[in-house]
Amino acid sequence: MEESTAPQSKKGAKKAEAKAKKEALKAQRAAELAAAAAGANGNLEDDPAKDNYGNSQTTTPGFSQDAEEVEIRSLDESYNGKTVVVRAWLQKSRIQSAKMGFVELRKGGNWTIQGVVMASEQEPVVSRRMVKWVAGINPESYVVVEAKVTKPLEPVKSCRVSGLELHITKCFVLAPAPTMLGLTLGAASQPIVNFSDEGARLADADTEKAAEPTAEAAVPAASMLTHLDNIAMHKRAPVQQAIADIRVEVKKLFRSYLEARRFKEFEPPCLIGAASEGGANVFRLAYFGQEAFLAQSPQFYKQFEIAGGRERVFSIGPVFRAENSNTPRHMTEFTGLDLEMEIKHSYTEVLDTLEGVLLSIFRGLQERCAEEIDTVRAVYPSEPLLLPEPGKEVRLTFAEAQKLLREEGPAEFANVRDDEDMSTPQEKALGEVVRAKYKTDFYVIDKFPETARPFYAKIDDAGTTVGDGVRVTNAFDFFIRGQEVLSGGQRIHDPVELEERIRAKGVDPKSAGIKEYLTTFQQVGVPPHGGGGIGLDRVVAWFLALPSVHLAAYYPRTPKRLLP
Amino acid sequence: MEESTAPQSKKGAKKAEAKAKKEALKAQRAAELAAAAAGANGNLEDDPAKDNYGNSQTTTPGFSQDAEEVEIRSLDESYNGKTVVVRAWLQKSRIQSAKMGFVELRKGGNWTIQGVVMASEQEPVVSRRMVKWVAGINPESYVVVEAKVTKPLEPVKSCRVSGLELHITKCFVLAPAPTMLGLTLGAASQPIVNFSDEGARLADADTEKAAEPTAEAAVPAASMLTHLDNIAMHKRAPVQQAIADIRVEVKKLFRSYLEARRFKEFEPPCLIGAASEGGANVFRLAYFGQEAFLAQSPQFYKQFEIAGGRERVFSIGPVFRAENSNTPRHMTEFTGLDLEMEIKHSYTEVLDTLEGVLLSIFRGLQERCAEEIDTVRAVYPSEPLLLPEPGKEVRLTFAEAQKLLREEGPAEFANVRDDEDMSTPQEKALGEVVRAKYKTDFYVIDKFPETARPFYAKIDDAGTTVGDGVRVTNAFDFFIRGQEVLSGGQRIHDPVELEERIRAKGVDPKSAGIKEYLTTFQQVGVPPHGGGGIGLDRVVAWFLALPSVHLAAYYPRTPKRLLP
Repeated sequence: MEESTAPQSKKGAKKAEAKAKKEALKAQRAAELAAAAAGANGNLEDDPAKDNYGNSQTTTPGFSQDAEEVEIRSLDESYNGKTVVVRAWLQKSRIQSAKMGFVELRKGGNWTIQGVVMASEQEPVVSRRMVKWVAGINPESYVVVEAKVTKPLEPVKSCRVSGLELHITKCFVLAPAPTMLGLTLGAASQPIVNFSDEGARLADADTEKAAEPTAEAAVPAASMLTHLDNIAMHKRAPVQQAIADIRVEVKKLFRSYLEARRFKEFEPPCLIGAASEGGANVFRLAYFGQEAFLAQSPQFYKQFEIAGGRERVFSIGPVFRAENSNTPRHMTEFTGLDLEMEIKHSYTEVLDTLEGVLLSIFRGLQERCAEEIDTVRAVYPSEPLLLPEPGKEVRLTFAEAQKLLREEGPAEFANVRDDEDMSTPQEKALGEVVRAKYKTDFYVIDKFPETARPFYAKIDDAGTTVGDGVRVTNAFDFFIRGQEVLSGGQRIHDPVELEERIRAKGVDPKSAGIKEYLTTFQQVGVPPHGGGGIGLDRVVAWFLALPSVHLAAYYPRTPKRLLP
Repeated sequence: MEESTAPQSKKGAKKAEAKAKKEALKAQRAAELAAAAAGANGNLEDDPAKDNYGNSQTTTPGFSQDAEEVEIRSLDESYNGKTVVVRAWLQKSRIQSAKMGFVELRKGGNWTIQGVVMASEQEPVVSRRMVKWVAGINPESYVVVEAKVTKPLEPVKSCRVSGLELHITKCFVLAPAPTMLGLTLGAASQPIVNFSDEGARLADADTEKAAEPTAEAAVPAASMLTHLDNIAMHKRAPVQQAIADIRVEVKKLFRSYLEARRFKEFEPPCLIGAASEGGANVFRLAYFGQEAFLAQSPQFYKQFEIAGGRERVFSIGPVFRAENSNTPRHMTEFTGLDLEMEIKHSYTEVLDTLEGVLLSIFRGLQERCAEEIDTVRAVYPSEPLLLPEPGKEVRLTFAEAQKLLREEGPAEFANVRDDEDMSTPQEKALGEVVRAKYKTDFYVIDKFPETARPFYAKIDDAGTTVGDGVRVTNAFDFFIRGQEVLSGGQRIHDPVELEERIRAKGVDPKSAGIKEYLTTFQQVGVPPHGGGGIGLDRVVAWFLALPSVHLAAYYPRTPKRLLP
């Protein structure tokens, strides 16, 4: 008994300690804020530099007329010797002597520069009090400085702009940070140690230590809960800035590839009147006396656009899954990159387009986001995504993939069937076999058996069957590193065939949502078409081999987390 | 009593008639579909052209080797004399004589060309049976034809490609439309007569007539309900294609203006843990034992991005309002175009950016979408949006606007106050006064009184007051044609000031959502910032002066409509 209670009381003590710390932090913060609000910079009247520093309530304290306002990222040799005004986060500060202090300023995600504040009796006057004050500014305060750009004796290795430094002559804090941060930039820049949604917050003792400004030397990591509880600091970490930039670029690459091919964007609704794609994982809400549902995919709406004559469409937007899965692979809200297009000759046109857009995204990222990828890899090390050489893309049929797994995969998969869907462990194992054999992390599995596909999947025209006479479909999945990132295929456009398949899957063609879907194909002639859906969060997470898809999202939504 | 029952029984008879018609249509459709599914084109064995026409189940029936596949929009003089393959909707068909028939083919929204099918005994053989068959294809079927491009004797005025026509030698129906459409293209192309969500469907007697193929001469209009019940035909109407294209362009213009100014896109969540911006109009849903809400705006999340060091952000995504308003101005789900940015010197930087982006959208549309705008105006006539000359943008303070309304507006507004929010009729009246005085439909009203703004609006630094000592804010609205399309302003970044304003507005700073919001500003220094939100649907609808915002949406969501 004692053994089991001991850790609990330890835990209790830790809890109480954490609480006390929290209260102290709160009281201190209140005092600081009150002082800041009062506008008192505490400068003495006899300080000859008293107008050159302090807390400011205005966005623009007085600066020299000839000072140019500039972003850190824009500072280059041409600014040497000039006087500039810079707004930035102060990320570090230290006093060197009574006459000299150093700060590090950061802006634009990861652009940093060293600032020096040196006492001077000549104009512009910098008093010793000012040096002390500037060197004592709390990290993560937002400041505006006036400074002369100079070349340091040696490059400042710790800063991205290493060939220049700022000799600060004025410094105002526009928005003060508290003395103790709930999550320091150093801790926020470490790999996250725990992605669990429960309990991790209090176990997070290392973070409490990190919060003390003296603990700079040891930079421990924090849990995802602590990160999200300190959302601003989580986002300020260069690794998260880089992930966010990569995510933006994925969307841009997706959009530009498709727009160049005459695809038109549209917006499917989130609120829908029927749980048309399976009722189990759907969110329901009261809607003016009826029931509404949150869309699990834009599938039906993409097809309505095709029926409505839009020819080629894509959408980028939220989709929802009410799945009570607390894993690093799942979220309840995520972003879908979807497309749908008319088919002229064969559904391989759809496959080509989707393969093209994903390769364009992966190659585009490697080209345009090399720096951001390096920033991420410095925190979360990973191998670059191995892509096929142009013209050597790997497309296996489902049956070929299963055969490969039986013959070259682990023994436990020696009996996988060609007419049954793959499990996640099978997919992962296949990823390794494919990588070894074809030297690529990116590949397509085509011709899934009808048993593994929804009713709208078009059956293969040639009547091919696998296993016990199960027909195959013109439907496929795309994988990276053994994990599915895209599902797609040709859809049934003929209403008779569609109704037959709806019934065969045990769905009532007259049920809500299905009825309106089927009706659309009966009302007009709808051309042959197909498409696919890409999970944006997964593309980002698995391209970078992140330990959790939650890191790729701006505000991850899990069964336990809705705030912030 | 008799007078009141008479219309009711008439209604009953109409209802029964409509039902019978529906049943007949359904039976006919079933027979047609069965025939199509059987693959029977009904061609006689002795027909020398029997392989050149019919229903096809394959996307690519046999065509000549030298035939080039081409889109209607790409057909120009250079194709004269060439043999081409064209896929399109057949929108009209008529028989001229036993030897000649005409069709109209449409693709790419509004690109049309005339097709001629003429009996010929020479190769390629076109039989009289084929002529009759092609001229009898149901409108809105999807077809693929092989044809020789020729110049007509006279330009074909009814078609957009008027200088060429297609001499059809092969014609296959890939997806047949039914004989009777629930909504013809002609009816779908008329102005919508009724936007009500209830009862209008059965009152829609004109549409029933329009469904008969012989009723072509008289093209009556239909209600919005009929349009949405026939979603594919609603979308195929050139006017809706044009509106959709304009909507796409608004988003592109918004995005490109901001990206050129270093704004970064992000995605705020839809699922949130608190009804933080007023509980009355928020959708609630069960969420794994807790309650979730659908976001009414991305406001807090835009600010978290700023706190998180993203500097300038924008988002394009759905927002939700659980408002039981059945008006042409309201929807329960719509698309927000939002931005937020750091402020350096003054909140007018935000105002300048928002004014710039909206003017860039309006001028961009006038330039890039002139044809689409004409297409819309042909159905919904309107005056072009009057824009200010560059440098002569109109910005009034709220007090100036109220004074203008008192002095130059209708008598009923002679006593409007400077410290009370405007009503919708006031806004409309002001729009007319401004148009008369300043020759613009686009203007800004700045410095709203604090009584008309939420707690996060920054109070004017100068301490200006209006009316009974009410302070004004650095917050503004933008209007077009007297209707608000944008709300924005500077936000409070100082946590002490923010908490004070939260309390002053009677909100509990410890309530869910508010607590996490306030905490973020206490955890780190957040720079001065501001932004605004634009209603995409409203921008499209009011730029075009459409009779309802529902016309601008892809799938309008109202308290009574969730399908399709």
